[in-house]
Amino acid sequence: MKTAATPTERESQAEAELMELLRIPSVSADSKHSADVRHAAEWVAKKFAAMGLKPEIIATPGHPLVYAETPAVPGKPIALVYGHYDVQPPDPLAEWITPPFEPTVRNGAVFARGATDDKGQMLTHLQSVAAVLAAQGKLPLQVKFLIEGEEEVGSPNLGPFIAANLDKLACDVIVVSDSSQFAPGVPAVTYGLRGIAYYELRLCGPKQDLHSGTFGGGVTNPANVLAKLLASLVDEQGRIRVPGFYDDVVPLSGREREEFARLPFSDAKFAAQLGVNGFSGEVGYATLERRWARPTCDINGLWSGYQGEGAKTVLPAKAGAKFSFRLVPKQDPHQLTENLQQYLEAQLPPGVTMELIDFHGAPGVVFPLESKYLEAAANAIEQGFGKRPVFIREGGSIPIVGTFVRELGAEVLLLGWGLDDDNTHSPNEKFCLADYHRGTRASVALWDELAKTS
Amino acid sequence: MKTAATPTERESQAEAELMELLRIPSVSADSKHSADVRHAAEWVAKKFAAMGLKPEIIATPGHPLVYAETPAVPGKPIALVYGHYDVQPPDPLAEWITPPFEPTVRNGAVFARGATDDKGQMLTHLQSVAAVLAAQGKLPLQVKFLIEGEEEVGSPNLGPFIAANLDKLACDVIVVSDSSQFAPGVPAVTYGLRGIAYYELRLCGPKQDLHSGTFGGGVTNPANVLAKLLASLVDEQGRIRVPGFYDDVVPLSGREREEFARLPFSDAKFAAQLGVNGFSGEVGYATLERRWARPTCDINGLWSGYQGEGAKTVLPAKAGAKFSFRLVPKQDPHQLTENLQQYLEAQLPPGVTMELIDFHGAPGVVFPLESKYLEAAANAIEQGFGKRPVFIREGGSIPIVGTFVRELGAEVLLLGWGLDDDNTHSPNEKFCLADYHRGTRASVALWDELAKTS
Repeated sequence: MKTAATPTERESQAEAELMELLRIPSVSADSKHSADVRHAAEWVAKKFAAMGLKPEIIATPGHPLVYAETPAVPGKPIALVYGHYDVQPPDPLAEWITPPFEPTVRNGAVFARGATDDKGQMLTHLQSVAAVLAAQGKLPLQVKFLIEGEEEVGSPNLGPFIAANLDKLACDVIVVSDSSQFAPGVPAVTYGLRGIAYYELRLCGPKQDLHSGTFGGGVTNPANVLAKLLASLVDEQGRIRVPGFYDDVVPLSGREREEFARLPFSDAKFAAQLGVNGFSGEVGYATLERRWARPTCDINGLWSGYQGEGAKTVLPAKAGAKFSFRLVPKQDPHQLTENLQQYLEAQLPPGVTMELIDFHGAPGVVFPLESKYLEAAANAIEQGFGKRPVFIREGGSIPIVGTFVRELGAEVLLLGWGLDDDNTHSPNEKFCLADYHRGTRASVALWDELAKTS
Repeated sequence: MKTAATPTERESQAEAELMELLRIPSVSADSKHSADVRHAAEWVAKKFAAMGLKPEIIATPGHPLVYAETPAVPGKPIALVYGHYDVQPPDPLAEWITPPFEPTVRNGAVFARGATDDKGQMLTHLQSVAAVLAAQGKLPLQVKFLIEGEEEVGSPNLGPFIAANLDKLACDVIVVSDSSQFAPGVPAVTYGLRGIAYYELRLCGPKQDLHSGTFGGGVTNPANVLAKLLASLVDEQGRIRVPGFYDDVVPLSGREREEFARLPFSDAKFAAQLGVNGFSGEVGYATLERRWARPTCDINGLWSGYQGEGAKTVLPAKAGAKFSFRLVPKQDPHQLTENLQQYLEAQLPPGVTMELIDFHGAPGVVFPLESKYLEAAANAIEQGFGKRPVFIREGGSIPIVGTFVRELGAEVLLLGWGLDDDNTHSPNEKFCLADYHRGTRASVALWDELAKTS
């Protein structure tokens, strides 16, 4: 007969399990580690089995998925936990204070590759379900787990698997813990992500570089044209000038602006942290609004002509740029590509030809602040962290979230247990053990709170 | 007792002498060739001595200058011939059809490094003075020769020598043959050169590259600012927007525009040659006017962020550009630097700092079409080439010409005997032997025509 372990014993065991998983160098990008990635999948499956579930290790053309589910609870919503057991490569190795796959605790945090991204965060939901099952024998709602091994290489096989398994994965709400709190002691629920549309623009002028003295002024300079085209994308108010760009933008609501304004965020501190003397951007919006909830246009790369030392009097034959727009709901990246192409072509002077390459596009997502699931998550976090969470958005894109929304029609709860200084993707990645346990407690509460929504 | 050789004999001898000089690999940029450079200086001095002059080989911190002069002719103007006996490196050697220092005649042209730049063109004036001295025992005016050995490495020691020898070099008109005819069969007098002001602009934003999703929109992007600043330099009419830029510009005269319009030049052929579908530039001016006689702003180099394959969602920490203005008389490059700095700084948004590096500046020069020396040169060329020359300007800069004008207060006659396809600075450099002799005949006539001006 099972009995629940005391909290402290359970936490010690949960820490030991995390250390065990962190010792497996499951680097998905490196084929030398294929066996390790497999080993990590098996470790996760074994954990599910120990919880009393019947895990599946599902082969893909790449690394396997691990799937498990608790029994259905009729009349209650279904939650799907998504996470990943693979990790980033640990390079540069020399910068690690302790080896990346020998987890070491310092100042209450465990240092290891994958500690926060995503082994530690992902495990909180396994531990919470294990704890509830151990204590009560059942969950108040059905939880499905989909844990993949290719997140760090762009999840190439996840989308097709989801599309082919809509019934299996059917759910009402998706829980993802693979991000950060707003700040230490300020837990957060992320309810929106920006989308993206990324382009490369290539301009060709004369068939070879020319002397800028002999030819300058008479021959169209592709670098001059590039500067002009790029500058034409944004106006003096920081607004994007591509026709139709704002047509479908969902404006920030008054409540959102109030929530953001209440956050412990200071432009001055942020500027000091980045080493800048101030900020600029779309007129009429605060820094967090600009970063999270307004569309942008950023040049990501630029090249033309002579980049070496000193002076070379060349009129370059070519010029190019990479630039991208961050999109907010309900902007359509495909429509943008069309409008952008026309907008740029219309400005092209004789003497230069252009090619616009569309790299990738993904729409933004946002869930209504009034959502019952967001409210449930907030209540659960309050129980786990002893603090009401803030509601934030994220300026980046998580393409798989868009896939979930599109394919499963479910709402996604982004519940980050990490911290901004966790060194994700960098040497000395860490995860605070207190947050590991708080996250687990919040997850325990989450199943109850989600069950209460119906 | 000397007698003048018949033209054919003299021409054969002149060709043999040219071949001799071309066999000396006087590559000034390559210290392995120091002895060869010295050898070429001695060859030139020996030629002056053979003409009956008393040459000086003048040591400099680099390669020597060769100086010689014919006797003073009171009441007549003094002409100073400037040329150079050093040559560009011959690389890439593999692309030469015959070795660069084994002069070979094909299709009436001699192929060798330095054939047109400048040994062949420079020698025409030595041969003409030799011929006149041989035939008549004296010249109708005094000719001074200043032949240097460092033109291909930027003439570092020539300016100081001129400044220190103003009396020795005192003259009314300077003759330089180191350029090209307008087209085959269209000899030209170049009466203007553009100046230059060359800059590098460096913009710094955050202390390191940032994620364009998490930070984009809220953090000033130096690449966006760079595009905006560069685009702000030129307006929709192709006019430069730096305040005061046109204040001192000497406009094209009606006669100049008529002369240019008469030239055998076709936009369509020029476009085909460059591989472009048309031209753009300052509204209201034709292509040759834009290239020769109007100021310009050309970006020479651009860099920022990610330049590799594919997409990287980076908000770059830095962005930079090299750009230059071609100037026309009487624009002042120093004043421009000041105005430019202010103009750019005034546009700089918070979050980015700028550094403007002033590489070099030189004013443009132009001599009045009504000048008696230009008229004399035109008459001389008509006699040497059997065709009246056209009057053209050149878009590039020849800094030493500015030095001559400034230090000696003399007018400069740029009488190019070469052709556009002579492969100057490239493999298979050549010089048409018929132009070598026509140039020499024009030079013979030049001394008479110049003497007639007073």
